[in-house]
Amino acid sequence: MSGRLAVVGLGPGDARYLTEEARLALDEADALYGYGPYLDRVPEHPGQSRHASDNREELGRAAAALDHAASGVRVALVSGGDPGVFAMAAAVCEAIDTGPAAWRGLDLAVVPGVTAMLAVAARAGAPLGHDFCAISLSDNLKPWAIIERRLAAAAEAGFVIALYNPVSKARPTQLGVAFAILLRHLPPSTPVIFGRAVGRDGERIAVVNLARAAHEPADMATLIIVGSAMTRVVARPNRPPLVYTPRAAAEVRG
Amino acid sequence: MSGRLAVVGLGPGDARYLTEEARLALDEADALYGYGPYLDRVPEHPGQSRHASDNREELGRAAAALDHAASGVRVALVSGGDPGVFAMAAAVCEAIDTGPAAWRGLDLAVVPGVTAMLAVAARAGAPLGHDFCAISLSDNLKPWAIIERRLAAAAEAGFVIALYNPVSKARPTQLGVAFAILLRHLPPSTPVIFGRAVGRDGERIAVVNLARAAHEPADMATLIIVGSAMTRVVARPNRPPLVYTPRAAAEVRG
Repeated sequence: MSGRLAVVGLGPGDARYLTEEARLALDEADALYGYGPYLDRVPEHPGQSRHASDNREELGRAAAALDHAASGVRVALVSGGDPGVFAMAAAVCEAIDTGPAAWRGLDLAVVPGVTAMLAVAARAGAPLGHDFCAISLSDNLKPWAIIERRLAAAAEAGFVIALYNPVSKARPTQLGVAFAILLRHLPPSTPVIFGRAVGRDGERIAVVNLARAAHEPADMATLIIVGSAMTRVVARPNRPPLVYTPRAAAEVRG
Repeated sequence: MSGRLAVVGLGPGDARYLTEEARLALDEADALYGYGPYLDRVPEHPGQSRHASDNREELGRAAAALDHAASGVRVALVSGGDPGVFAMAAAVCEAIDTGPAAWRGLDLAVVPGVTAMLAVAARAGAPLGHDFCAISLSDNLKPWAIIERRLAAAAEAGFVIALYNPVSKARPTQLGVAFAILLRHLPPSTPVIFGRAVGRDGERIAVVNLARAAHEPADMATLIIVGSAMTRVVARPNRPPLVYTPRAAAEVRG
């Protein structure tokens, strides 16, 4: 039997967010690979081997999983959220592109999942209700100048903006710079949603405005959604506010 | 007992793509609302009433579901893909924002799902592997000039672009105009993925380049992903090509 690699999205949190397709892919695997805290979310299965790795070693982890699958084993490589959004699927494709020819013959399946921006948006209402974009604020793999340029272009053109990887220990100040850039193109009253650990213990949703956003705490478990000039906040009695971007868009400035 | 409205994402296709949370929300509802073909995907439950409506009547459908929930009933309003992405959640928020005060007191839950761009991306490899955006090509609710401006801004800034609602009977020519705009900012060799009915009968994935994209058939069940200048296609023996956007980005032009 030839091997198989499934790159499986776990969604934002516990098992409630798994799709049936993801559950099946995890159940039928002989070996599980992934970043330790993601692997810990997957129920133990007798006879399945587990290979936890560090968060930073994406390409090495992809290569190890591919190598194991190429030996004829069914391997599942787990990813938080959706594997195609700032996660493992691109690393696997890159490893196949640059690795041994045998890896191109492997049965590869990417199993989609609910990515963090969809989970945070759902908790807040419908902030992604119109055109939107997703930007990783990490400059480990791209120059910071590109990030600045994309933030400005997206805000100017009226996209709602989801910010992944907003902060890390090595990058404590860039989120503040990002908000300052956005303030040049968006009203200070623009709603900003901070969603931390959605679907997990310690979940927290906060809605502030762009002028105040730099004072709000954030870490690597935080996903931030910055509205467009059209995004609205609806106050509700005894309930958190609803944030949504209307389906209809008027002409934007500029 | 006070009523409840759950806006539930069904994912792209059959029940394999449902999350456990979505399945529970559907099971416990007294009444189901939605566009007919989406409702048809939900298994019948004894004692549940069903209220199918036309695709175009989003705000009316949202109001009917809210009204029913406000009478003390548990209502589930179903949406294809994710309810927050060009779907029902924004219409529900808009109805609450502009409707009777009682609707603001309702228990509202948005249940996220796998949106079409994630499902199409998973089938193709990892084309959304870096910063990306989602644009609806429908100008029912926004001026076409905004769409042109967003296409140009996104391509110029190096975003991968997912196009929702690319074509309809009333809009047969705008997709061709969109590709012509993108060709001004992207190489003719840029990979373009057409994903039709992913996860359902008649699923079809095609990978072409931007210069050829206007000749590829598309309809309202098609989701299109246009790569950035960095997006790569990996040929594989006896398998469809892999399309991915590397995690690392170099400086973009312009």
